[in-house]
Amino acid sequence: MYFGACYYPEHWPEERWETDAEMMKAAGFNIVRLAEFAWSKIERYEGTFDFSWLDRIISLLGNQGIKVILGTPSATPPKWLMDQHNEIYMRDMYGHVRGFGNRRHYCYSSDIYQTYVDIIVDKMARHYAGNPNVVAWQTDNEFGCNDTTRCYCDNCLSKFQAWLKRKYTEIDSLNDTYGTVFWSQIYNSFEEVVLPAFTVFPLHNPSLVLDYRRFASDSVIDFQKKQIDIIRALAPHQSITHNMMGAFNEIDCYDLSADLDIASWDNYPNLMFTKEVNPALAAMQHDMTRGLKQHNFWVMEHQSGQPGGNIMFPTPKPQELRRWTYQSIAHGADGILYFRWRGCLFGAEQYWHGILNHDGKPGRKYREVQEVGNELARISAIIEGSVNKAKVAIVRSYDNEWVFEIQPHVMHYSYMEHFTRYYQYFYDKNIQVDIISPDFNFSEYSLVVLPNYIMATDELVEKVNAYVRLGGNVIFDFRAGAKDWNNRMEPLTLPGKFAELLGLTVEEYGVLNKGESRKVAFGGVEGSFTAETWFDVIKTEQAEVLATFDEDYFAGCPVVTKNRYGQGHAFYIGSDLEPALMELTLDEVCKVAETEASHGISAPKGIELVSRNKAGQAYIFVINHTVLSQTIQLHRSFEELLGESVLQGEVVIEGNGVLILAGAKEQV
Amino acid sequence: MYFGACYYPEHWPEERWETDAEMMKAAGFNIVRLAEFAWSKIERYEGTFDFSWLDRIISLLGNQGIKVILGTPSATPPKWLMDQHNEIYMRDMYGHVRGFGNRRHYCYSSDIYQTYVDIIVDKMARHYAGNPNVVAWQTDNEFGCNDTTRCYCDNCLSKFQAWLKRKYTEIDSLNDTYGTVFWSQIYNSFEEVVLPAFTVFPLHNPSLVLDYRRFASDSVIDFQKKQIDIIRALAPHQSITHNMMGAFNEIDCYDLSADLDIASWDNYPNLMFTKEVNPALAAMQHDMTRGLKQHNFWVMEHQSGQPGGNIMFPTPKPQELRRWTYQSIAHGADGILYFRWRGCLFGAEQYWHGILNHDGKPGRKYREVQEVGNELARISAIIEGSVNKAKVAIVRSYDNEWVFEIQPHVMHYSYMEHFTRYYQYFYDKNIQVDIISPDFNFSEYSLVVLPNYIMATDELVEKVNAYVRLGGNVIFDFRAGAKDWNNRMEPLTLPGKFAELLGLTVEEYGVLNKGESRKVAFGGVEGSFTAETWFDVIKTEQAEVLATFDEDYFAGCPVVTKNRYGQGHAFYIGSDLEPALMELTLDEVCKVAETEASHGISAPKGIELVSRNKAGQAYIFVINHTVLSQTIQLHRSFEELLGESVLQGEVVIEGNGVLILAGAKEQV
Amino acid sequence: MYFGACYYPEHWPEERWETDAEMMKAAGFNIVRLAEFAWSKIERYEGTFDFSWLDRIISLLGNQGIKVILGTPSATPPKWLMDQHNEIYMRDMYGHVRGFGNRRHYCYSSDIYQTYVDIIVDKMARHYAGNPNVVAWQTDNEFGCNDTTRCYCDNCLSKFQAWLKRKYTEIDSLNDTYGTVFWSQIYNSFEEVVLPAFTVFPLHNPSLVLDYRRFASDSVIDFQKKQIDIIRALAPHQSITHNMMGAFNEIDCYDLSADLDIASWDNYPNLMFTKEVNPALAAMQHDMTRGLKQHNFWVMEHQSGQPGGNIMFPTPKPQELRRWTYQSIAHGADGILYFRWRGCLFGAEQYWHGILNHDGKPGRKYREVQEVGNELARISAIIEGSVNKAKVAIVRSYDNEWVFEIQPHVMHYSYMEHFTRYYQYFYDKNIQVDIISPDFNFSEYSLVVLPNYIMATDELVEKVNAYVRLGGNVIFDFRAGAKDWNNRMEPLTLPGKFAELLGLTVEEYGVLNKGESRKVAFGGVEGSFTAETWFDVIKTEQAEVLATFDEDYFAGCPVVTKNRYGQGHAFYIGSDLEPALMELTLDEVCKVAETEASHGISAPKGIELVSRNKAGQAYIFVINHTVLSQTIQLHRSFEELLGESVLQGEVVIEGNGVLILAGAKEQV
Repeated sequence: MYFGACYYPEHWPEERWETDAEMMKAAGFNIVRLAEFAWSKIERYEGTFDFSWLDRIISLLGNQGIKVILGTPSATPPKWLMDQHNEIYMRDMYGHVRGFGNRRHYCYSSDIYQTYVDIIVDKMARHYAGNPNVVAWQTDNEFGCNDTTRCYCDNCLSKFQAWLKRKYTEIDSLNDTYGTVFWSQIYNSFEEVVLPAFTVFPLHNPSLVLDYRRFASDSVIDFQKKQIDIIRALAPHQSITHNMMGAFNEIDCYDLSADLDIASWDNYPNLMFTKEVNPALAAMQHDMTRGLKQHNFWVMEHQSGQPGGNIMFPTPKPQELRRWTYQSIAHGADGILYFRWRGCLFGAEQYWHGILNHDGKPGRKYREVQEVGNELARISAIIEGSVNKAKVAIVRSYDNEWVFEIQPHVMHYSYMEHFTRYYQYFYDKNIQVDIISPDFNFSEYSLVVLPNYIMATDELVEKVNAYVRLGGNVIFDFRAGAKDWNNRMEPLTLPGKFAELLGLTVEEYGVLNKGESRKVAFGGVEGSFTAETWFDVIKTEQAEVLATFDEDYFAGCPVVTKNRYGQGHAFYIGSDLEPALMELTLDEVCKVAETEASHGISAPKGIELVSRNKAGQAYIFVINHTVLSQTIQLHRSFEELLGESVLQGEVVIEGNGVLILAGAKEQV
Repeated sequence: MYFGACYYPEHWPEERWETDAEMMKAAGFNIVRLAEFAWSKIERYEGTFDFSWLDRIISLLGNQGIKVILGTPSATPPKWLMDQHNEIYMRDMYGHVRGFGNRRHYCYSSDIYQTYVDIIVDKMARHYAGNPNVVAWQTDNEFGCNDTTRCYCDNCLSKFQAWLKRKYTEIDSLNDTYGTVFWSQIYNSFEEVVLPAFTVFPLHNPSLVLDYRRFASDSVIDFQKKQIDIIRALAPHQSITHNMMGAFNEIDCYDLSADLDIASWDNYPNLMFTKEVNPALAAMQHDMTRGLKQHNFWVMEHQSGQPGGNIMFPTPKPQELRRWTYQSIAHGADGILYFRWRGCLFGAEQYWHGILNHDGKPGRKYREVQEVGNELARISAIIEGSVNKAKVAIVRSYDNEWVFEIQPHVMHYSYMEHFTRYYQYFYDKNIQVDIISPDFNFSEYSLVVLPNYIMATDELVEKVNAYVRLGGNVIFDFRAGAKDWNNRMEPLTLPGKFAELLGLTVEEYGVLNKGESRKVAFGGVEGSFTAETWFDVIKTEQAEVLATFDEDYFAGCPVVTKNRYGQGHAFYIGSDLEPALMELTLDEVCKVAETEASHGISAPKGIELVSRNKAGQAYIFVINHTVLSQTIQLHRSFEELLGESVLQGEVVIEGNGVLILAGAKEQV
Repeated sequence: MYFGACYYPEHWPEERWETDAEMMKAAGFNIVRLAEFAWSKIERYEGTFDFSWLDRIISLLGNQGIKVILGTPSATPPKWLMDQHNEIYMRDMYGHVRGFGNRRHYCYSSDIYQTYVDIIVDKMARHYAGNPNVVAWQTDNEFGCNDTTRCYCDNCLSKFQAWLKRKYTEIDSLNDTYGTVFWSQIYNSFEEVVLPAFTVFPLHNPSLVLDYRRFASDSVIDFQKKQIDIIRALAPHQSITHNMMGAFNEIDCYDLSADLDIASWDNYPNLMFTKEVNPALAAMQHDMTRGLKQHNFWVMEHQSGQPGGNIMFPTPKPQELRRWTYQSIAHGADGILYFRWRGCLFGAEQYWHGILNHDGKPGRKYREVQEVGNELARISAIIEGSVNKAKVAIVRSYDNEWVFEIQPHVMHYSYMEHFTRYYQYFYDKNIQVDIISPDFNFSEYSLVVLPNYIMATDELVEKVNAYVRLGGNVIFDFRAGAKDWNNRMEPLTLPGKFAELLGLTVEEYGVLNKGESRKVAFGGVEGSFTAETWFDVIKTEQAEVLATFDEDYFAGCPVVTKNRYGQGHAFYIGSDLEPALMELTLDEVCKVAETEASHGISAPKGIELVSRNKAGQAYIFVINHTVLSQTIQLHRSFEELLGESVLQGEVVIEGNGVLILAGAKEQV
């Protein structure tokens, strides 16, 4: 396991470096990330490269047994470079230059910029390929961060046109697909096609907007690929990763990760403004990242102090850092790098706090990190090689999420919030979940959830049908099958190509705006529930009805259905169910799909249970996300790794506390 | 009566056309609108015109007895055209090009664009002048829609300067009128005058801003006029209309309509986000449209399914479409074209639903439209030629509305909301109202309301005085007479030139911000009411006091007054009265003006009564705007046209239900 | 004392001028301001100057004994000038030209504009230097008003670079200070440095942003200085002032005032949208203005009618103008000029009402002004030469305020609101306050408050330490000492260089977002209070604890402390205290600092007491800011100047009423 921090020696006097390295060693560090924003330090003048300072700190860290991940510095081209090539800057949809002074001030489509990046990556890779202290590379930094995926510059316009030409070959193929006959937008050549930039009214052709989002995502992937090719050719033994951003959706991270050796992400649970932090959101993003390569991952930036640009976020309370760290590991993190070693005295992120405050003295956060370091020194050999397993998968489709961003249907509607409703249920029940691409294999799972699966390919329809036919279980919900993969409506009665699988037709539908809901009756359960966001007016064919609307002109119509199909079952949910109704519904689904856990632990709300497995044995992380002591029930005897004790029966776990229980068989 | 839909054959495979035409016929259609966005379909390459597809569908529709309204396609210039002439695009106030990808991406001031429009209109008119199935033309589509009336391009700048030169002749006449001496803005030539574009602070000279709004409105009217001239010269027997937008106010629709044969508008009662739809708003916009030419009109786009761009609006419930249709007819619509025949599979308005959903199958909405079609087949001969009559007129002045948009006086104040307070009263009382221009004849009316009549010409003052002197009744309210017609303050004590008519002076005044109100006592009525938005501190000369403020330093001062002037009465209201107080006040006004109805029907709230009259007889539309059954009282016997029965006494009308009662004498 | 109005003869027919002058005379006027926006009236065509109209009105006013303050017209360059030099316009951060049509449409950095300004100021000064009726000059008008301090044009870019070169000499000095190594922003020359314009994300280097704000402020000061030099050379006997804007903070008004003979400001207490006007805010801004030159001042624009651009503000009620006028005088105003004589018939400020309404007739406001004029005629000789004195000073630091605007720390946090919490306490207690620069002498005061003193120089630290050592008392609060004067973090444990003085260390800290608070216990007082915005986790060294947090993980930690240091005391407040807790805290501070008043008057809430002193005697202004009568207790006998009576014991003061009590000894 890697344990360390992001470190910026270039921000501090060289006299301090030794102290830092010793303090890191004392905290149990074995890794730091360096140099991802150091371009103008390395190449202050064009063509003059200075790695000497970087060599010195790497060597000094090496002396303390600390390895290095090097960042390629392409996120921050120096000013001398930008002054030569104004065309590198991104443009917003009005044509405004997005100028110098922050970071990520470049467009992925700039060939000129690519040549500069090639050179510096090549220089760095050559210089460090043979350095045994350098174990890995991070490409760039947080691709797409701060709205930098999508650009409206002239380079993007012509590259988008070329991308479209590759996809459609003939302009009339594009015209037919987009339906440009609508509003007289027929294009006579690819050179006529526009970016979805500023226009009279912000309502572009939805197929074009979707293609533009795909193009923008592809541009980032291409940009990264060139760096990877250079490094891999020169330093094939060093791993390559990129620090992604969890639920961030502007780039298709399945594709971005395909070129990487390992996925990483930046985990800031306290980045929110709200007073209540929901630990399910961090858990979900860990699972998303693990799902990218269906493999363990690193947390490249792990919150230490309070984050903040001009505004500061909440300060982590005592033992919060430790708790988040173990949650990360529980969900599959094999590397933890805190961001950052020490608060910086200057620059735009002065207030983004680190393990050490600006004064550089070891304080509460340092001591807490050191505590974790000591624990990991004892347990990491045991944990290493263990993996998470799940019976339930939720399909995250970037393309479908984009469709709902382009056309939210309902004011303020969010695909990701809808997605999270499902995740939250499984999280609350401590049922392990994989978050997967629609392209991944479904056959390993008892249950596959496909939220808001509005665009469907024939392949996916066939795959789902085959999966259910052989005993799998699926959940679809409203808007399923409404569109083809190019964001055109299907000329079919809904749920379109899923109608046979689901055994129903949707006769009508409509939105329920914020604050609106309709009553729902759940078969056999007394009382009335509510559903919101949307209503489908469903007519069942073969499907069994689990819940019905109890209000409005569609009172009595089904809202939740279950259809036997081959050996399996296909569920359909025609609205957004309130939590209690969602629980009833998914309890029923889980009963059918047999997804319950078997670890023999009972725990109250606020306690998260997650298992990593190795050699048929489970290591169950028990995490108390509350600030109060909680009591759990162990129905068998466990070895607890952190406290090195044996536990059974009623066990008290203190606020923010963590247990790692060994002794149960593999858990999925 | 015309009954049909907006139809886009170019969106569908030609194999489908016959089915569509047959289904239309079966629904009772006799009209469709075609081609208003089909420019790039007709002229895909410059100078190559293809009308063959349009000929085929017109002929096919003709076979089913369905006539055609053709739209001129000027709302959507093709990309090949725009690529040649970037100057055609509108600019926003910052100078940003409002680019391609939506519609209406052209400036009315572009001479180059005008030449292209002339050509295609000429081609179309020549081609279809002799086609007996083509009965009318629609110019362009929804002029001004989506903020496209006002542009800040260089063409607009020079055309505005020329417009000003025509108006003022000498630059010092403009300087004197605008008071450019204020803030050192004296212009030395018309070429120096600016558009009210982006500046340090959004506070331009109010006379200049008003002239700019007039210029922009005139530009649209000129643009349309050229099309009308071409069509009328070639096809004088075909009617010309334009689909306007009810309360939309950027264009002076009295002037725009003057050039048309018939007025049309697009009626989407469910376009709102609110849960409660107020049927008075649709009624008011019908009356506005009827007032444009003081003549019956068409609803060119009548809501069928839920509208929606990226967000969907509420789905119409069963029988809503039928109810809105009869409301339209009741208020004077002689043509109903639903928008649109079928939901489109592609394009920016995929979610703007039609009579048919995307699957093209006849569903609930089709059956409901068909029901109306069958009914109209029976009754349209009876209704045809009938007209609405009113004793009450409300004056809608675009110029005065613009002044309140430029200078709202009170944060969030809306002239149109204020206007609607009056309309709502008469609507609730089922008193017929005409909405007229200040230039129209007042003498037909018992009562003329002139809300917020801030700018007044000497002619208007003279006309009103003469009207009242001869027995007419008028209502003025706060800000009346404060300005001249060029948006300059009058150097007079308020109400300025109306002081003699109203018999009072306004000593002081002030705003009441959102949430503020003042108590008011209404003479002879117990209890206390409130007024908001504004207070005038009134000193009556001859006028009689109906209500007084009961609070603040102006407690005891009049707020509603009545002044005998010649044979008539002039009322004044110095604040925005709460509904109960407005009702007391207008009840008193109506008593004086003798405006009550005499149809012999009593109906509860939620029931609308509207009469169309022919040959001295009234056809009274009774419309239940609630979803519940309601009971009305018929104090005499009526023939009911839809159910073909005779009714008298207590009659139950079901939720969303409609009756058409014949038998009473002409109603005004 | 000067008493008069802002007057725009150029807005009215010359026939009216005599009437105006006579009415002014009758109201007791002895001063008017003229011509500050009259450039295009004076120089309609380039190089042709016409002062004849101005000569005539000055002479006419002189005949009535009314003197004149002349404005230099540089706030409104004429259109002919702008059309020649587009580069004069300001640019916003996107590069948009901030065009013609309002005012202040020029950039201070334009050398070309400066040459035009030099000429007209020179012409005016030459023409009026010898005119005995012209007693003073106002430079420009409201520098910085409507966001016009900061510009992003090319002139500003190069002048900013030159400003930086003067400050830093070597580019690496700038690089080191800013920490440009962060995010690869190392500059190789001053020509590479950017303005903090539009970029990917609005988060520029905080040291650069601060320098840009200083540069922008300096640019205004330089711009003004050139005008002052011209006038002073030609007319050394005429005073020079500028009408500043109270709490407006974009320009360092200590520096701006240093070049002036007297400070002025524009006082609009009813400019707010809120229903409740807080008179402490007007009082505070008077004290700020008096503090600029530590000298009496003028109110150059004093509200008369309701202000308003397109929206109108509340109408002043009867006796409000009089009350605000006496409050101004009480706080040190030696000149009152109402804005404006008469409401203008045209232009962007038609609705900015004056003493006379648009009809030009004497009404309620005129009579009220006249009443004040009559009173001043009697008492001004007595008041003249009197000054305010205070034992308490609050330090207003523009630089520190800028830091909190750049980096508010907490969402919606406002330095000025925080500052006002202190001022409000002293205002409510009727304790006189001076508001001073950190550069001013502290030794006169018993107590100096330094709110949010985040950036500190060594000099200031030394000055404060010396002041306290010799018996002074200070209050610091959260963030004190966190930064150096260039907006870099200090690498010290907080409160940094103030640690010794305050006798504590801040171990941790964090934000409390809007709506959050923490319980606080105040030593010896029962019950629990709250604090918000921020928490410091304090460890006291020598300091005594006055209040502690009572909640969260830092419960029991100090929040208010008092440290004996030499002969004085240094207080520290680690959060924003709720008013009751602030009162307890500051009561304790005031007891220690001995700041209580000794005038022998007891007054209820809503009554303001302010003293001006002359020759050892106090003139105590008693101002009833409520609309109700209030009773005060005079514990000795006073001569009341306005009513010319002798008062003692229980005295009733009517709503909006004012007394001026003579007889007590000098009050501080």
